[in-house]
Amino acid sequence: MSEARAVVLVSGGLDSCVAASWAVRRYEIWLLHADYGQRTAARERRAFDAIAAALAVPPLRRLAIEVPLLRRIGGSSLTDRSRPIEQGEVDASRIPGTYVPFRNTHLLASAVSWAEVIAATRIVIGCVEEDSSGYPDCRASYLEAFNRVVAEGTPPDSGIVVEAPLLHLRKGAIVRLGIELGAPLSSSWSCYSGSERACGRCESCRLRLCGFREAGLEDPIPYEVG
Amino acid sequence: MSEARAVVLVSGGLDSCVAASWAVRRYEIWLLHADYGQRTAARERRAFDAIAAALAVPPLRRLAIEVPLLRRIGGSSLTDRSRPIEQGEVDASRIPGTYVPFRNTHLLASAVSWAEVIAATRIVIGCVEEDSSGYPDCRASYLEAFNRVVAEGTPPDSGIVVEAPLLHLRKGAIVRLGIELGAPLSSSWSCYSGSERACGRCESCRLRLCGFREAGLEDPIPYEVG
Repeated sequence: MSEARAVVLVSGGLDSCVAASWAVRRYEIWLLHADYGQRTAARERRAFDAIAAALAVPPLRRLAIEVPLLRRIGGSSLTDRSRPIEQGEVDASRIPGTYVPFRNTHLLASAVSWAEVIAATRIVIGCVEEDSSGYPDCRASYLEAFNRVVAEGTPPDSGIVVEAPLLHLRKGAIVRLGIELGAPLSSSWSCYSGSERACGRCESCRLRLCGFREAGLEDPIPYEVG
Repeated sequence: MSEARAVVLVSGGLDSCVAASWAVRRYEIWLLHADYGQRTAARERRAFDAIAAALAVPPLRRLAIEVPLLRRIGGSSLTDRSRPIEQGEVDASRIPGTYVPFRNTHLLASAVSWAEVIAATRIVIGCVEEDSSGYPDCRASYLEAFNRVVAEGTPPDSGIVVEAPLLHLRKGAIVRLGIELGAPLSSSWSCYSGSERACGRCESCRLRLCGFREAGLEDPIPYEVG
């Protein structure tokens, strides 16, 4: 039997960069990127293309789509320009303003539809439970429930399963795993605000910088602040 | 407490027309329509607008979106013009060529995202298990699994639940219910092929005509064949 195919969701961030680097050792990877109206969509798209190129994924196995609904309805500081992006510490006990309503279900549904058409049996998503505990759609219980929907909602022989290899890792361990796998971390982009240099202050930058600090390494991307 | 809000998925077909007419008696309804590249998208959109107007739903409570991914990937005779639409009897033991990969998960995810933003607690979908047994994403087990995803993947206080009031009805009973509710059946459109007159031969037309026959009524929309 030939190598199994996997659709990997690649936002262009640190986690999806490492998840794709994990998947490329196991599967023939097909990369899916979504523009859902997030502020830094253009910058993320560049990161997606750079990661795809670094992992030698040919253009035919890359798909960049739009999810116009999420842009239209807003409801998040990532998609509604009138809401400020929060800075500083993340309060894990509440849902952050950057939560995009039910976003991961749109992304995973897109991956499953594409997987059906190209006969892929794996979906790989780089979500992380501990560091993103405020997001309901990043938890193990959510992914288990989604896998039930896949089993019930696709043809019986499709055999599609969602895997989240980073789910139980801390950011430091993700950085170390990325280094070990030779992941193109310098091509990844995590900042919610900036476009040429990362702001270093938003919740996503702080988590990323914290991961590199935990791993005892320097982040290769440029930051506005020292 | 004021009337609960519901997002109703309205394709413009017979079932969603009856489901919306059922919902308008219970909830403040908000109507969602999706263009996913289906052949008769423009005709369905007209049906959606006509049904919304007949149910006196103001424009602010209507949302017509696109799902570009499903158009892009094809994989169905509804979205890929090179695949013929099947005619004649439905073979319930296999999945029809008109099955669109994982479509209902995209539609329901869109409804849930919108429901979060407008604080609706109900999603109403007109899917029918018996008449559509070939579609994996029209069955009770699929909807139960999806409701688990909603409970796990939305903020704890959102309280969103998907309801499928027609799920266990046969087409004849749906037509009778529509008449009883005063549903605007003459504004609905079910045909997969035609645009001015329904073809009367595709699987969707046959199911619809069969429903009117079972109910002992005449379908008010125009057909190509007698």
